[in-house]
Amino acid sequence: MRVLVPFDAQSPKTRLSPVLDAEERVAFARAMCRDVVAAIQAAGHDPTVLATAPIDLGAAPVDVDDRPLTPAVNAALAEADLPVAIAMADLPLVTPAALDRLVGDPAEVVVAPGLGGGTNALVVRTDAFSVDFHGVSIRDHREAATTAGVDVSVVDSFRLALDVDEPDDLAEVLLHAEGRAREWLDSAGLSVAVREGRVTVTRTVEGGG
Amino acid sequence: MRVLVPFDAQSPKTRLSPVLDAEERVAFARAMCRDVVAAIQAAGHDPTVLATAPIDLGAAPVDVDDRPLTPAVNAALAEADLPVAIAMADLPLVTPAALDRLVGDPAEVVVAPGLGGGTNALVVRTDAFSVDFHGVSIRDHREAATTAGVDVSVVDSFRLALDVDEPDDLAEVLLHAEGRAREWLDSAGLSVAVREGRVTVTRTVEGGG
Repeated sequence: MRVLVPFDAQSPKTRLSPVLDAEERVAFARAMCRDVVAAIQAAGHDPTVLATAPIDLGAAPVDVDDRPLTPAVNAALAEADLPVAIAMADLPLVTPAALDRLVGDPAEVVVAPGLGGGTNALVVRTDAFSVDFHGVSIRDHREAATTAGVDVSVVDSFRLALDVDEPDDLAEVLLHAEGRAREWLDSAGLSVAVREGRVTVTRTVEGGG
Repeated sequence: MRVLVPFDAQSPKTRLSPVLDAEERVAFARAMCRDVVAAIQAAGHDPTVLATAPIDLGAAPVDVDDRPLTPAVNAALAEADLPVAIAMADLPLVTPAALDRLVGDPAEVVVAPGLGGGTNALVVRTDAFSVDFHGVSIRDHREAATTAGVDVSVVDSFRLALDVDEPDDLAEVLLHAEGRAREWLDSAGLSVAVREGRVTVTRTVEGGG
């Protein structure tokens, strides 16, 4: 299946600024995107990165669309032969097995919730559905599908639910991921720390990979 | 399968104090525990609440052990006929399907990661393994199983990963749960709010159910 991977090529992951500077955030965001692309390819699917600016991501084909996320994805859906899947570029825990569960669900629309009300991945098999990533999108996507009379299914995956936005999310990458993003964090000197009963990250050396 | 549900019957969920008072936290914690028990029963399994003090939880049998979590669970494991599963009492998103995936995994030890490095559910089929919930327990449990030469499997479930500790976690309950805990939050006047791009909860009326 074709899988779109929307990617902010310009100023990604600003909420990681307490632990990573701007250049590091760009490098880390690319490492995460390459992990997602690699997992899609390992699962036997066909990734296309939908980037806001021209970018070299190694093996992944890149389409450029400088519009915001929602219109860019809806335009790509309108042009594509369905079914099409969508997976966000900031899911460094994703595995081929998690993608198999997403793509293997036969519903007309399949959604994978993100922590905090987002939608981290979808499969769209009907042109009666369009995406809207604004606000509490997982609730909106479920309601929009129901309103359109479209069969919708929700995939239960921690690996798809964990998108990286804030420093504490990096602890999950260090605990559960094995790809480029994990290696990048290791080389940047980040490690898991426990603070007030929750895990977060601490940084022991300067400079990333 | 027998499923132990450890439950802090005395002062549960203190980190919810910004939105719920002490009496409300007790009521909400019991609602979550009853949801977990109901999901276990609906999945055809046999729950036993392992409570720190005598408590009435309706249909669920309760064993009392006032020791901390780790020794109480290890004592229960030592006395039980294996396999035994363990599911935390603060998993209001849990469904029979999520439990089926946990219990249906044939590994000697099956673990379900919690957000923040915890372990939210396990299946133990060998007496060569004991639990230790202190610190970053998901990493410790994986390492302990490997050290003991025990086959360990990790279940990928958002519904098992989401334990309720902080106010933002309540937004996930409002978005994804349907049981008593969700009803309790609704009746207490809590609803989903968006703040700085993340969901949290807001409270519009006083008094809980």
